[in-house]
Amino acid sequence: GQITHNEFYMLYHSTIYLNGQFTSNDRAYISPDDRGFYFADGVYEVIKYYKSKPFCFNEHMDRLKNSLKEIKIQFPQIEKLHEICDALIQINEFKNQYAGVYIQITRGVAVRTHRFPPSEVTPTVFARAFLMNPYLDEMKNGVMVQTREDIRWLKCNVKSIGLLPNTMLFEEDASKGAFECMLVRGGFVTEASHSNLIAVKEDKIYTHPDSNLILPGVTKASVLNICKKNKIPVVEKPIQESDIYDFDEWFLTGTGSEIVPVIQINTTKIGHGKPGKMTRFIQNEFLKITYQKLAGEPINL
Amino acid sequence: GQITHNEFYMLYHSTIYLNGQFTSNDRAYISPDDRGFYFADGVYEVIKYYKSKPFCFNEHMDRLKNSLKEIKIQFPQIEKLHEICDALIQINEFKNQYAGVYIQITRGVAVRTHRFPPSEVTPTVFARAFLMNPYLDEMKNGVMVQTREDIRWLKCNVKSIGLLPNTMLFEEDASKGAFECMLVRGGFVTEASHSNLIAVKEDKIYTHPDSNLILPGVTKASVLNICKKNKIPVVEKPIQESDIYDFDEWFLTGTGSEIVPVIQINTTKIGHGKPGKMTRFIQNEFLKITYQKLAGEPINL
Repeated sequence: GQITHNEFYMLYHSTIYLNGQFTSNDRAYISPDDRGFYFADGVYEVIKYYKSKPFCFNEHMDRLKNSLKEIKIQFPQIEKLHEICDALIQINEFKNQYAGVYIQITRGVAVRTHRFPPSEVTPTVFARAFLMNPYLDEMKNGVMVQTREDIRWLKCNVKSIGLLPNTMLFEEDASKGAFECMLVRGGFVTEASHSNLIAVKEDKIYTHPDSNLILPGVTKASVLNICKKNKIPVVEKPIQESDIYDFDEWFLTGTGSEIVPVIQINTTKIGHGKPGKMTRFIQNEFLKITYQKLAGEPINL
Repeated sequence: GQITHNEFYMLYHSTIYLNGQFTSNDRAYISPDDRGFYFADGVYEVIKYYKSKPFCFNEHMDRLKNSLKEIKIQFPQIEKLHEICDALIQINEFKNQYAGVYIQITRGVAVRTHRFPPSEVTPTVFARAFLMNPYLDEMKNGVMVQTREDIRWLKCNVKSIGLLPNTMLFEEDASKGAFECMLVRGGFVTEASHSNLIAVKEDKIYTHPDSNLILPGVTKASVLNICKKNKIPVVEKPIQESDIYDFDEWFLTGTGSEIVPVIQINTTKIGHGKPGKMTRFIQNEFLKITYQKLAGEPINL
């Protein structure tokens, strides 16, 4: 018979990192008194490895430092994370694969009280590696997104583990066949549930400026760099929900999904339902600096 | 020398409940793949026991059911929680004490992905009991609160474990000597970081109506019941930040702190810096139905 989820989970083996030790995921234990479990009092990052070579590792660490600073977690050991991530790729035999490393840092273990614990409480550090193959079909053919009210908190620039709103919004849209959400706050598009959103009109790029309302995407920053190098004009300002169908192209950016064209918003086709020229150009430029340059395995869409 | 936090935590012993078993808190383990740890994908309740007698147990369970329904966690075993909570009070020898029981239910353990896991994944159920003595000094003399922008998500009616904004806001105010925050969203007072807020003017009660912007407080509902019984008029509408100093009295309500007068907001004294008559009347009525009626130990302020 078919394997059940619970059976799969029991069989699922992976070597993870937890508080200084590498161990099997089924032997890794978190205290129920961890503030990550009680309060979502922690932050995370996901770094993509292209056959052992991480993409934008330093940019992810800079964002992690900023997230930690914003929520006032003291964690001076950031420098050690590179070695840990590399080791997880090696130990899990992802050296010749496309893989992600997930890092989560919480404020640590303390008897439950809303106030922050004394500074001697050490943060919990958890990291794991997992396969992260390219979304070839979605990158090539594009996807549908659905608009949805952005109900998240007002510090979305912090990559916090408080992702309940994100997962709820995504589950609702994904169960209707959407690849992502197009979140709208106060009449303006912010971003997607775990990606940034970029629009194209008359060969210009439009996207929400970095602010407390969106996560400063590493892949988005990389796209804006590609634009700069290729003299493509970029307008960083919020797009009104009433204008979303007036754009020639839309695409999503994210560490896992990289660059995925949006060919439909709700029931309306974008660009006659096909990925646009500008999106394709930017995708191919991005694939050059990742799959080609880092992994030595060119992908051309 | 003085005991450190980490030493205290190691010494701290308590019998907790986790997924069908009663065990010592230092032997209770959560998987790092628990969605409560990854995504704040869970909800909680705290019930106060007055010498073995819970206050408003059913009201807490109704709110828990609603929280679970809002985030679509299937958990048909709600009825079993009463027995578990009672047992935690007994086992931890809190029978003749004032104690709280904390219950947390998450969506369960699954390999990390934003989409909800299949329905066969069983929720994680965690509960613990702890001492919860009356805030006698604060109840008698009143406290200071500080206004702060309400940065939380837009489903505050769900008692989710995604409390990072609450703890951040509270830490900032508490470190400045405040007992609680007065949260303001869009120019209107919503509630505090883990209490509701009620104002009094010319013998009328004013409070934010239940909505997606506040938690429907069990103690608040109990206060509104006291008002009804005593023919005290209640106006349920949001109060403008610019009007906060125009009220005769303010007070906080919550399961732990019960009813605490606010005698100062920021640097401005309320009611000449003394708890008001209406607050005192309501406090004493509340203490009758709790300490006197449930515990047989009257408190009169």
